[in-house]
Amino acid sequence: MSVTTARITAVDTYDIRFPTSRELDGSDAMNPDPDYSAAYVVLRTSAGGHEGHGFSFTIGRGNDVQVAAIDALRPHILGRPVSDLCDDPGSLYRDLIGDSQLRWLGPEKGVMHMAIGAVVNAVWDLAAKREGKPLWQLLADAEPEWLVSQVDFRYIADALTPGEALELLRTGKQGAPERAAELLRRGYPAYTTSPGWLGYSDEKLTRLAKQAVADGFTQIKLKVGADLEDDIRRCRAAREAVGPDIRMAIDANQRWNVGEAIEWTNALAEFDPYWIEEPTSPDDILGHATVRRGVSPVKVATGEHVQNRIVFKQLLQAEAIDILQLDSARVAGVNENLAILLLAAKFGVPVCPHAGGVGLCELVQHLSMFDYVALTGTTENRVIEFVDHLHQHFLDPVVISAGHYRAPIEPGFSAAMHQAAIDTFTYPDGAFWVADRAEGDQG
Amino acid sequence: MSVTTARITAVDTYDIRFPTSRELDGSDAMNPDPDYSAAYVVLRTSAGGHEGHGFSFTIGRGNDVQVAAIDALRPHILGRPVSDLCDDPGSLYRDLIGDSQLRWLGPEKGVMHMAIGAVVNAVWDLAAKREGKPLWQLLADAEPEWLVSQVDFRYIADALTPGEALELLRTGKQGAPERAAELLRRGYPAYTTSPGWLGYSDEKLTRLAKQAVADGFTQIKLKVGADLEDDIRRCRAAREAVGPDIRMAIDANQRWNVGEAIEWTNALAEFDPYWIEEPTSPDDILGHATVRRGVSPVKVATGEHVQNRIVFKQLLQAEAIDILQLDSARVAGVNENLAILLLAAKFGVPVCPHAGGVGLCELVQHLSMFDYVALTGTTENRVIEFVDHLHQHFLDPVVISAGHYRAPIEPGFSAAMHQAAIDTFTYPDGAFWVADRAEGDQG
Repeated sequence: MSVTTARITAVDTYDIRFPTSRELDGSDAMNPDPDYSAAYVVLRTSAGGHEGHGFSFTIGRGNDVQVAAIDALRPHILGRPVSDLCDDPGSLYRDLIGDSQLRWLGPEKGVMHMAIGAVVNAVWDLAAKREGKPLWQLLADAEPEWLVSQVDFRYIADALTPGEALELLRTGKQGAPERAAELLRRGYPAYTTSPGWLGYSDEKLTRLAKQAVADGFTQIKLKVGADLEDDIRRCRAAREAVGPDIRMAIDANQRWNVGEAIEWTNALAEFDPYWIEEPTSPDDILGHATVRRGVSPVKVATGEHVQNRIVFKQLLQAEAIDILQLDSARVAGVNENLAILLLAAKFGVPVCPHAGGVGLCELVQHLSMFDYVALTGTTENRVIEFVDHLHQHFLDPVVISAGHYRAPIEPGFSAAMHQAAIDTFTYPDGAFWVADRAEGDQG
Repeated sequence: MSVTTARITAVDTYDIRFPTSRELDGSDAMNPDPDYSAAYVVLRTSAGGHEGHGFSFTIGRGNDVQVAAIDALRPHILGRPVSDLCDDPGSLYRDLIGDSQLRWLGPEKGVMHMAIGAVVNAVWDLAAKREGKPLWQLLADAEPEWLVSQVDFRYIADALTPGEALELLRTGKQGAPERAAELLRRGYPAYTTSPGWLGYSDEKLTRLAKQAVADGFTQIKLKVGADLEDDIRRCRAAREAVGPDIRMAIDANQRWNVGEAIEWTNALAEFDPYWIEEPTSPDDILGHATVRRGVSPVKVATGEHVQNRIVFKQLLQAEAIDILQLDSARVAGVNENLAILLLAAKFGVPVCPHAGGVGLCELVQHLSMFDYVALTGTTENRVIEFVDHLHQHFLDPVVISAGHYRAPIEPGFSAAMHQAAIDTFTYPDGAFWVADRAEGDQG
């Protein structure tokens, strides 16, 4: 091997935390006071050129554990040739989920799996930068055979074979150039959760709901599940604010048991909710199927906490969901999300990704845009969640216009944060947290 | 509150690793080279008296991540009054699984959940020591109402209500004193995995299988799943060694897809395997149900990697398993295992716990013995796994006699390791590892 082969020379990690709990942004029935955080990783290369950025999203405490998990993956990455990694990110993905000792800590779930997601996504960021394309375009331009090679079919082959995946991708490629052009013109439909946080007053809810409609959104979302009387009042206010033609989703953030989910959702049915999101535990496949039968015609949506492709497979097999809400950073990165997009396409279930948090909008837009351009070929009944905070910390932040995500055109996965944001919000020694403690000491 | 109230004064953690990979002990189709490890925690009290010991079991790399996760729980525990904790371990269990920020890292699965298990089990160890009873007896003597108060019914109430749990426990208490006496006389049936590790030669397998029968075991277990021809040869050798009347379980350690699991198991059916264990992903509830229908009359067993009570609930609801293999340290400790024992009792499925590793035999015997004495009242078709290594490091190691676990009589949860073992095998600075590196440097 040539001595000039570019290699991964450093895997740098950062514990970054934003004090979002102080404004009740992000408050819901299970998460009253999140401090949106990122366990952030930068892959540096000996080329002196591109870097790969990725992260796990957490909501505060435990972000240090998440960083430790990414650190545990370092020996698998350091020294690997950049071209090998970028030509075949699946090789690293398989090595990481296959580490026989680390696997015990999951397998393929929780802290260790999210850490793998951060690293794998960082490789895709690097690969897209080297290719000079935004990730959605790299994926949309890729050969179907190569995309299939990036998927691990273990534990899903009973629902989706490599041959079926190839067929879906070949069909999806027909007309892709026209759809890419359309995407660049119109963007991808978004919905907004910004009005509906549980900690907001009715006045703020109503004002933001009206603003959302004025801004061109055709769907909003409200958090529910803490108190039924409050939920009735807030749903009524929101429905009055937006009128009958705007879709209004509701989101219980796993608050309920199965029976309770059915009763509560039906008690809100008069306000015509479009979907009930996370009605119960994300692990409860059979429970979601029961809820779905019990709340029809309200649709059932889940996914932001679904741990891997194996659980998504079963949610589809059991006809437990109407809407699949993949998350860019919960599972093992782009490779596993390719499997999930393919499963959804096979079962004909629309994907409406979870976003918000720190940088989740920036990442997940690429996956939906690939799905539109080169897999399902449609945006019908598909929307990407949008939450309007923390975007200013990103080098290539999402742009929303007339209720649509504009297609990113910068090379990469839009994952990189400004160095100043990293420096300021690194916990506990960044400038913000140092000043915050000093203030606390005075107070 | 009195100033003399005893409190938790320290939560000390240790990264302990044993070099088991060098002997191929513990080798199977997915775990070729485990270094059995413990993320170990000691709760120290201001009483200067009892300590509570607990641990998560891992197989080497990542044990530091597991320790970091236990460390993240420290603020919830430090300073709590010992009597409050021991009178109601469920209060801490609920606080830990309910921490709204840490919850994001699961929820209730993987590294963070196992860390909660370590801490909760340490509290039960402390409680049993203060009570002066082995844990099985503390549980068997407890009032049904109190045991029900220790269970979190969230996400399982559709399968088991508090009222049903109370009824099961009240019925289970009838005749408990007689069964306790019987348990102390005869012990609890065990089976042994020691002959069947994948890395062992046929000669070693045959010799250990015969020894197992001579030692009074009526069931052995073989690892399978790496190579079918090898498995056929090994199963034949083992069956010939033990004869037709000894139960022989086989264990694939999640190696297969669903279809493959059915074909492979049926290819071994001529050797009359009693159960096929972990035929596929522990997350695949529907997959296990399919496998079970496809391999009958071979029974399907799983559980050592089942992440929580919610997945066990569904395995039972879907009629996906014949044998439920709970693990003492994978879920959130005794409280969640109470829920799992109650679910199994409700559905009439026998519990045959996973054990082995580091200290898992020591812990889990208490749960099965409680189940026998004061819940299901039977040991029929029930056996606890036994693997004969690393017991020498424990203060109150398991004792096997005539194929049975002797009932522990020392107060506590049998979780405490010798200080010398902790000092020697702490990674990377314990005496063993320091010497090992020095040797490596010379080599």
